[in-house]
Amino acid sequence: MSDSLEFLFHPRSIALPGITISNPDHWTRTFLNSLLEIQFEGSIYPINPKGGEIQGLKVFRSLEDISGTIDYAISTVPARAAPKLVEECAHKGVKSIHFCTAGFSETGEKESVKLEAELAQLATQTGIRIIGPNCMGIYCPKARLSFNEDFPRESGSVGYISQSGGNTTQVIRQAMWRGVRFSKAISYGNACDLNESDFLEYLTYDPDTRIIALYIEGVKDGERFRQALREATKAKPVVLLKGGVTKAGTRAVAGHTGALAGSEATWNALCNQLGIIRVHSLEELVDVLVTFSFIRSPGGRNVALLGFGGGASVLITDEFETRGLAVPPLPQELRSQIEEFTPLAGNILRNPIDYSQVMESDKMVKLIDIISEWDEIDILVEFLRLTQAPPSAKATRAQTIEKMFEVSKTASKPVATVIEPGILPEEAKESFIAIQKLVSLGLPVYYSFTSAANALSVYLSYQEREFGNRGTRRHNR
Amino acid sequence: MSDSLEFLFHPRSIALPGITISNPDHWTRTFLNSLLEIQFEGSIYPINPKGGEIQGLKVFRSLEDISGTIDYAISTVPARAAPKLVEECAHKGVKSIHFCTAGFSETGEKESVKLEAELAQLATQTGIRIIGPNCMGIYCPKARLSFNEDFPRESGSVGYISQSGGNTTQVIRQAMWRGVRFSKAISYGNACDLNESDFLEYLTYDPDTRIIALYIEGVKDGERFRQALREATKAKPVVLLKGGVTKAGTRAVAGHTGALAGSEATWNALCNQLGIIRVHSLEELVDVLVTFSFIRSPGGRNVALLGFGGGASVLITDEFETRGLAVPPLPQELRSQIEEFTPLAGNILRNPIDYSQVMESDKMVKLIDIISEWDEIDILVEFLRLTQAPPSAKATRAQTIEKMFEVSKTASKPVATVIEPGILPEEAKESFIAIQKLVSLGLPVYYSFTSAANALSVYLSYQEREFGNRGTRRHNR
Repeated sequence: MSDSLEFLFHPRSIALPGITISNPDHWTRTFLNSLLEIQFEGSIYPINPKGGEIQGLKVFRSLEDISGTIDYAISTVPARAAPKLVEECAHKGVKSIHFCTAGFSETGEKESVKLEAELAQLATQTGIRIIGPNCMGIYCPKARLSFNEDFPRESGSVGYISQSGGNTTQVIRQAMWRGVRFSKAISYGNACDLNESDFLEYLTYDPDTRIIALYIEGVKDGERFRQALREATKAKPVVLLKGGVTKAGTRAVAGHTGALAGSEATWNALCNQLGIIRVHSLEELVDVLVTFSFIRSPGGRNVALLGFGGGASVLITDEFETRGLAVPPLPQELRSQIEEFTPLAGNILRNPIDYSQVMESDKMVKLIDIISEWDEIDILVEFLRLTQAPPSAKATRAQTIEKMFEVSKTASKPVATVIEPGILPEEAKESFIAIQKLVSLGLPVYYSFTSAANALSVYLSYQEREFGNRGTRRHNR
Repeated sequence: MSDSLEFLFHPRSIALPGITISNPDHWTRTFLNSLLEIQFEGSIYPINPKGGEIQGLKVFRSLEDISGTIDYAISTVPARAAPKLVEECAHKGVKSIHFCTAGFSETGEKESVKLEAELAQLATQTGIRIIGPNCMGIYCPKARLSFNEDFPRESGSVGYISQSGGNTTQVIRQAMWRGVRFSKAISYGNACDLNESDFLEYLTYDPDTRIIALYIEGVKDGERFRQALREATKAKPVVLLKGGVTKAGTRAVAGHTGALAGSEATWNALCNQLGIIRVHSLEELVDVLVTFSFIRSPGGRNVALLGFGGGASVLITDEFETRGLAVPPLPQELRSQIEEFTPLAGNILRNPIDYSQVMESDKMVKLIDIISEWDEIDILVEFLRLTQAPPSAKATRAQTIEKMFEVSKTASKPVATVIEPGILPEEAKESFIAIQKLVSLGLPVYYSFTSAANALSVYLSYQEREFGNRGTRRHNR
C-alpha cells in the first residue's frame, strides 16, 4: 500500500546507532551533521556504548536508555551487528530503520548474503520496515530529513528513487544548482525489505511529487514493479535511468547492490509500452528534470537559436536538427526589422541568429522581441559562451546579457538557455553566477546545446505521446 | 604546391592596416595585442591615416610611408576598402594579406558577393595570396604569430584548419588546457583565394605537424579536396568535424562562410573510404586530439576502470561497453591480493574497482601496481569526481589522488584519466588544478567517462584500421 509509507518520511524522532564519538570527521557523522544542517525539528538521539556528548547532544549508551519514543533509526553499526539492532529496535517500538552500512549481499560473499536474508526475515517478523542496507536513505526537505549537508531546505516537485547512494547525491546536487527541487529522494540500496516498488507506489500517490525519476539497477519482483510503473505513468511523467545495460554493466550491478539487472530488450519494451521517459546518463536525467520543471510548454518543435559566433551557429543547428527539432529560416521581413538597428556584416541574420554584434541592451531587447513574436517559432534557445567575451568588452556585454535574460523571462515564447561552464577558474565563476541568475528567473539552463536539444526533444516527444498533437504543433517543414 | 606556402607562416614583418588608434578596446586591436603577447620578433607596422603611436609603436599613415619590406598584412579595413588595399599591397610588394573583415559573400547580398569576387580576381592578378575574408588568420607559435592573447607560445604537433574563427579559438583554448599544442592553426573563412585544399596540402608535408584536424563547412573544389585528403590520410591521422550536416545546418553554413556544404552521404562515404576520423562536435574533436597526443599506444580494448562510488561504476561500465571497449571481471587472484590491504565492505573489487575506501597513498600505489600488472588489461582508466569528496577527508584524499596520478605516469599500462569539472566555483578551481597536474604529467584527461570511452574507442578503431590488429589485441570476450 502506497500511503502506508507516509510515516517513513515524517519521523518525529530519530536515533543514530553506530555514530562515532571520538572522530568528528568520521563518515558515521554524516547523518547527524545533515540533520542539524537542515534543521530537523524532532528529537535526535546519537547512540554509542561510550556515551558522552556530540554537537551539544547527549549520546545514549543504548536504545533502552532513551525515555521518549523513537520513530526512525539511521544505523551505521557494522554489518554483523545489524540483526541485533533490529531486535533492539523492535523492543523499543521503532517503526523503521535505515541501514547505511555496506557489507551485505553486494559483496557476493556467502556469509554476507545470509546476513542480509536474516535482516529481511527480521523485518517481516518484527514489522519494522527496513531501508537498505548499503544506501543513503531518505531526503525529505519538508520533514527536514537529509543525508547530505549541501541539500536544499526547500521542497520541490521531483520525487527520486535510486538504488545508488552516490548517484542520488550526484543527481540532487547537479539538479539543485539548476533550480530543481525535490519532494523526496530515496537511496534504497540492496532493498532487503522496502524496495523500488514500495517507493514507486508511494510517489505515484504523493501529492507533493509531480515528476518521478528512477535510477534502477535491478528489481526484486518484476511483475509488481511493472504494475507499479503502469500506475505511475498514468499519474505523472516517469523518467528512468537504467544502470547495467551491458554484460559487464550487469556484473557491476551485482557487485553494487546484489540485484539482477534484467535484459536491455525487456527494459526497452517496458519503456515503450508504458511511455516511460528513458535517459542514458545522470547528466541526461538532470537535463530532463530541468526541462520538466522549467520549460513553459512549447507549441511545437520549431526553434529560434540565438547564438554567439558563426561557427558555433552551424554546429548548434546540426545538433538541433539531428535531434528532431526544426530550425526554420528567418523571414526576410523580420530580417529587415533587425537590420534597422544592427549592421549586417559580422551578423548572420538567418536562424541561428548570431547576436555577437548586438551587444547593447536596448538592441538586445528589440531583437528578443522581434524573434519571440515570430509566428513560426515555438521555442527560443539562447546560447552563451562566456569564454568568448573579449576582456575589454566585458562590462557592456554583462549588462546586455543580463537584459537578455530578463526579457527572456517574459518573452511571448518559451525560452531555454545554454551556458557552457568555463574550465578556467575565473570563467567557471562567471558561468556559475550567470547560471544562478537564470535559475532565479525560473529559466531552464543547460550546459551545452547538445544537452538542450536532446532534453527539449525528449520533453516534446513525451508531450506529443501523452497529448497527441494537442500539446505540440507538427514538425512543419 | 604545398611547400610554397611556407612563407605565409614565417613573415618577418607585418603591417596592420585598419587598426584603430583612439579606442584600445576596439576589436581591430586584437591582432596587435596578440602579436605583442606572443612576442613576435619581426617588425610590426600599425597603419592608420591618422598616424600617431600605439603600444609604443609608430603608426604609419599608409603602406607607402613604411621604408622596410612587408611580408604580411593583417587587414581590418572595412569590406569596401579591401580591393584598394590589395592594390596598395601589390605596389608595396606585400606577399600575403589576411582579411579579417566580414561583410562579403557570407551576407548573401549581391554587392558583397561581388566584392569578394573582386578580391579573388585581384589576388590572381597581383600574385598576392589572400587568407579570408571573414576569418582570424594564422596561429603559428614557432613564428610567434597569433590572433589571440591567450594562445600558448609553445609549438606542438597538431595542425588545425578551420573555416570558422570562433571554432578555431574554441578548439585551441579547450585543447591547450589539456596539454595539446599546435604546429599551426589556420582560420580561413570565405576562402576567396587560399582554401582548405591549399592548407591541407601544406600540413600534409609539414614536418612539424603530426596530426591534422579540420573544421570544414563546405569546399570550393571537391575533387581537389578529395585528392588532398587522400594524400593527407596516407601521411598522418586526419580528424574531421563537418559543420552543416542537416538541412538547416547547411543553410547556416551559407550564412557563415558562403560555402556549399555538400551532402552528408558524400562526406560519410569519403571518410570511410579514406580512413578519416570523423567527429561530431568541438568537444569530441578536442577529446580525440588529447588521445592522439597523450595516450601510450594500448595493446587492445580491455579496460580496467578505477571509479569512485558503486552507482557511478555501473554507469561507467555501460558507457565503455556500449562504445566497444571491454571491461573484464577482476580475477579472484588479484581480488585476494587487494583484499589483503583493504576491507571488502564498501568496495566493489570486481571491475570497475571502486577505490573510494582506498584513500591512503601507500594502498593506492599497491592498488595501481596490482591492476596495471593484470595481464588481460590494455588500458587503465581512472575516474575522479571531486565533488564527492567529504570536506573532512580532503587533505588525505588530495595526497592519495596526487600519488595515484604520479604512479599512473609510469604504470606498466597506458593510463587515461577522467575529471569532472566542478560547477561550484571552489570545485571548479580544485578540478582545474587537478587537470593541470595531470597535464603536466603527460596524461590524457577527459571531462566525463562518456568522452573518455568514446575518444579511446575512436583512437583504437583508427589504430586497428591502419595497422590491422598488429596495434591492438582483439576484443577478447
